[in-house]
Amino acid sequence: MYTQQLVFIAAALSAPLLSSANCMYGTSLFPRAAGAATVEVSNFGYTGLQGPLNWAGLSAENSACATSKVQSPINIDSTIQLAAEAPKVVIPDVKAAEFENLGTTVEVIVNGTTTLGGTNFSLKQFHFHTPSEHRVAEEYFPLEIHMVHEAADGSGAIAVIALTFQLSEDGTTTTELLTAVTENLAQIATPGTVTETGPLKFAEVINHVQTTPLFQYAGSLTTPPCAEGLTFLVTKNPLPLSVKTYNQIKAVVKFNSRYTQNSLGQENLIGVGATALTSAGGAAAGNGTAAGNSTNVAKPKPSNGTATSKPTPTTTGNVAVKVEGEHHCILGACSEIPKVKRFYRRK
Amino acid sequence: MYTQQLVFIAAALSAPLLSSANCMYGTSLFPRAAGAATVEVSNFGYTGLQGPLNWAGLSAENSACATSKVQSPINIDSTIQLAAEAPKVVIPDVKAAEFENLGTTVEVIVNGTTTLGGTNFSLKQFHFHTPSEHRVAEEYFPLEIHMVHEAADGSGAIAVIALTFQLSEDGTTTTELLTAVTENLAQIATPGTVTETGPLKFAEVINHVQTTPLFQYAGSLTTPPCAEGLTFLVTKNPLPLSVKTYNQIKAVVKFNSRYTQNSLGQENLIGVGATALTSAGGAAAGNGTAAGNSTNVAKPKPSNGTATSKPTPTTTGNVAVKVEGEHHCILGACSEIPKVKRFYRRK
Repeated sequence: MYTQQLVFIAAALSAPLLSSANCMYGTSLFPRAAGAATVEVSNFGYTGLQGPLNWAGLSAENSACATSKVQSPINIDSTIQLAAEAPKVVIPDVKAAEFENLGTTVEVIVNGTTTLGGTNFSLKQFHFHTPSEHRVAEEYFPLEIHMVHEAADGSGAIAVIALTFQLSEDGTTTTELLTAVTENLAQIATPGTVTETGPLKFAEVINHVQTTPLFQYAGSLTTPPCAEGLTFLVTKNPLPLSVKTYNQIKAVVKFNSRYTQNSLGQENLIGVGATALTSAGGAAAGNGTAAGNSTNVAKPKPSNGTATSKPTPTTTGNVAVKVEGEHHCILGACSEIPKVKRFYRRK
Repeated sequence: MYTQQLVFIAAALSAPLLSSANCMYGTSLFPRAAGAATVEVSNFGYTGLQGPLNWAGLSAENSACATSKVQSPINIDSTIQLAAEAPKVVIPDVKAAEFENLGTTVEVIVNGTTTLGGTNFSLKQFHFHTPSEHRVAEEYFPLEIHMVHEAADGSGAIAVIALTFQLSEDGTTTTELLTAVTENLAQIATPGTVTETGPLKFAEVINHVQTTPLFQYAGSLTTPPCAEGLTFLVTKNPLPLSVKTYNQIKAVVKFNSRYTQNSLGQENLIGVGATALTSAGGAAAGNGTAAGNSTNVAKPKPSNGTATSKPTPTTTGNVAVKVEGEHHCILGACSEIPKVKRFYRRK
């Protein structure tokens, strides 16, 4: 605790010693009990009004989540280049590391140094995303680890090495580091709790990072405040993962993958959605308040055609027929079925 | 082909014989070669401007995707009740079934009858989502199958039985129906192609649906046009899935899970995002055009503080310090780092 207080003092003097891709400022949902082995949990989430579509609505600090055109994660397509050279990674083995459940992820506090193109970056922590945040040629992976680094020169630059994982067909072949990390995962099933990992040996993962091709691009934090300026290095080839470890991680983390962002340099998809909403007859409130007020969103426009009208025959494509809605009772529960469209495929 | 033409004629006369939760009207990305064993692919997708945040922008028919307050998929929490009674499911075994790659999913054309609370529903097809679209108590599953039914009485009501799958720890225990379905999956790796499944025996899946608790709620199509009025029945307990089958499906389907929608009855998250964007200083175009025009989205507002200013110390929460941006070169690639915020955790 004493060291952590020192870190805070240093922070107040604006000397960066500790950073996190999972910022946890603001109101804590789980107020920390004094002296307890707990951490503050994130004030954002992945469901409903805490979810990614409303991150900018949670705090003015998060505006980039809705406005930035350089957001992560992305689908990695042929426009994303490979890193020109391999990083040099040094992470000392440890007998145990702090392992925290932040509510939005589980995170391991470790130290290390990664050298990228002559610049030294200090490893601060790594944390888990399931399913993966990045997609490669549209496909996702069951797990992605973000190794978060900060430039050692104090410039504030952040680099994230993203490790992707693929489940092994035999179900058991895995990356031993994951087994050691998750040894005590059951002890931090509750957000805000802390435990220790087992002994961590990094050689396998370091060797992978230094030998597999890495996609490199300039993106953003994938969590609030979604700040731009991060360098992402994403492994082209995944590491192996056992089903047991995957299911354990998924049961605790549950779901923490931000939706795929627009191509780099293109409009933020929140703005795209807002435009689509306007064209659909809805409108944003524009009153500067957080969401949840639906009075400003128009109802769907009625569209043409009823069950008794004939759709216009076309020579290509499919034909949609709308039928008027009704109430339908199934298993004693009556559902309102206001409008159901039927789509007929032509072959 | 003759039968399919008859279906279209029937559709033009508004007699529903064939429906699909994956509507495929509009421009085909893969024009169909006459006589070839191909299907039209969907005109929506899961990436960028084809993705879920812009589905309403793709067609006026899709307005519900952005405006409806009763959208699927959802996070199934304690507010969602279990079905009062089990459905009765009859699906005849077949030696083979048509197996299509629609670009957005792979789909099996089958016939069957499900009786729900005295109403007969005709099974039309089932298709795959990976990762799962529904989440149960926040957690997702690696695979979800949607068995799409239409009421036999011509009312147009649609019921979808959603089967969730969990990977088996031994890697190999699986649901035999999946093995048979995916026997020729490699032959339809390309969107727009068609093959046949292996012999399909439904007893195992039918028994599961009829004995496991089912969450029941009134939701929507999870794909355009996102029409309301569907009854979803989601299995509480997942079926087993082997890694081999999972990896095969994932390699072809890649990713086709719509983001979790807001709680039933709450504002559509597109509207929530639009409001958050407005409060963040951005604005929707409001010109009724499809997205991609970023000129109407304001830049992120500058926020207070620089690297040399001291953050205000607080007694709780965390402290954010902003540093001015610069260019940073890593591995020869220079990234613009306009602004990076550092977040210091207090403990």
